[in-house]
Amino acid sequence: MEWISNSRILIVGLGLIGGSYARALKRLGYHVTAIEKRQSAVDYALEHHIVNEAYTTVDPEIVGSADAVIFGLYPEVFRQWIKDYQQYFKPGAMITDVTGVKSCIVYDIQEMLRDDVEFIASHPMAGREVYGVENSDDAIFRGANFIICPTETNTPKSIRWIGSLGRILGFGRISVLSPEEHDEMIGYLSQLTHCIAVALMTCSDNEHLVDYTGDSFRDLTRIANINDLMWSELFMLNREPLLKYMNIFLEEFASLRDMIRDGRVEELRAKMRLSTERRAYFNK
Amino acid sequence: MEWISNSRILIVGLGLIGGSYARALKRLGYHVTAIEKRQSAVDYALEHHIVNEAYTTVDPEIVGSADAVIFGLYPEVFRQWIKDYQQYFKPGAMITDVTGVKSCIVYDIQEMLRDDVEFIASHPMAGREVYGVENSDDAIFRGANFIICPTETNTPKSIRWIGSLGRILGFGRISVLSPEEHDEMIGYLSQLTHCIAVALMTCSDNEHLVDYTGDSFRDLTRIANINDLMWSELFMLNREPLLKYMNIFLEEFASLRDMIRDGRVEELRAKMRLSTERRAYFNK
Repeated sequence: MEWISNSRILIVGLGLIGGSYARALKRLGYHVTAIEKRQSAVDYALEHHIVNEAYTTVDPEIVGSADAVIFGLYPEVFRQWIKDYQQYFKPGAMITDVTGVKSCIVYDIQEMLRDDVEFIASHPMAGREVYGVENSDDAIFRGANFIICPTETNTPKSIRWIGSLGRILGFGRISVLSPEEHDEMIGYLSQLTHCIAVALMTCSDNEHLVDYTGDSFRDLTRIANINDLMWSELFMLNREPLLKYMNIFLEEFASLRDMIRDGRVEELRAKMRLSTERRAYFNK
Repeated sequence: MEWISNSRILIVGLGLIGGSYARALKRLGYHVTAIEKRQSAVDYALEHHIVNEAYTTVDPEIVGSADAVIFGLYPEVFRQWIKDYQQYFKPGAMITDVTGVKSCIVYDIQEMLRDDVEFIASHPMAGREVYGVENSDDAIFRGANFIICPTETNTPKSIRWIGSLGRILGFGRISVLSPEEHDEMIGYLSQLTHCIAVALMTCSDNEHLVDYTGDSFRDLTRIANINDLMWSELFMLNREPLLKYMNIFLEEFASLRDMIRDGRVEELRAKMRLSTERRAYFNK
């Protein structure tokens, strides 16, 4: 399929990201159907015209009429769904996901999948510290990064297709990484930062800190408000790269601690200048 | 002095915070004079009507005409300034600062100061990751926290006076802490967070990360853009509380690492729920 106006899109899992995809795609004129087990999410999405149709159960006809299927499920639920229902996919259907870990899931899915449909993995680098279709908002994609993770079995057609999806959703930069490169990068940029926020937030049980704080503590702990079910699963599935970066960070932080303890001011200042220089790449 | 309309305010050190104080106080109708050694800052402040008068040198008459003096200097420069020029203060003048560390400086200043003027310490918990009067903006004070650090020698009058200053500048919550409590709190909320941001930023030398990142890494490293001269001085002057919290954080982070390494998912999830619960106090 191409991104032509009569495409029918099925979104499985209507959470924050699934809901935000639905909003964008429906507004662009695609026919958007959702399957989501939470009845209140289905009701909300229908009432607010986020989707054209939504169901709490998996109906063979609904799955079979979709030209493209986007999975917004947790990794293990996604794997099980493919096992249970892949026989319903329309021949030639394109399949993608929004999963935050790749190498542990992409090869498995591609191996178990029927030969007449194709799964091309992708990861929208956008999110919020709130959950559910009720908080969905496709403005979060504007200018954000979108990562495509093809394997050797993916066709050029599928890579073009997923790139188009990123573009029409409004993403800024679209990059291609192998599943392994993706997981390495995500271990550092996303998972390590969440671990840091959690550890910083649980360091003190003083309930009055809010009366004294400035913006920096707020910024560093925004993501300390964390969905424990989703993130513990993501951490476990990406344990190796995450542990690698946790150990690098521990070492770097301990070395900073030693400089302060020993009064090595010139080394401390050099480290701060390096930090400032590296941060400059990230100034929008 | 009280905060009456004909008060003359002297601001020594016209950086980001000094400049933002000047903007707010001049708009409120006070006569604001600045002493700042950087000529381009003086020129900018005069051109943009941020102050009524500004000078690069310390003139006895200018210092002597001020009812209140606000110091926006680095701690060691502040201490030296008091030594060199305190003979010029008007009898009865009220003096405060904006310094980020307290116990290492407040007692010294109070002890060396003349008996007919009073120094009451305060700390505006507002800032930006940019510097200089050119970036000043008193909107940063709106709703922010303001901390007053009186010692046993301070008069009730000075505490009322500094509280009024915080209110007219637009701060939200005004708290009173001892210099020691202040430094303990700042070691955790501000200095530890800056150390974390620097260590996170210097963990990897990959220049392409910006193409893949989401918002969480940006949030955690905003303050990794850091003034090395100012922050290394603040860290050294508050070494004990900072080292205490760096060690607590190291332990907390290492324990999280162990949970992930050992696959102790239930403990990991409990830690995330605690983090979420504590972060809720900070939701504005």
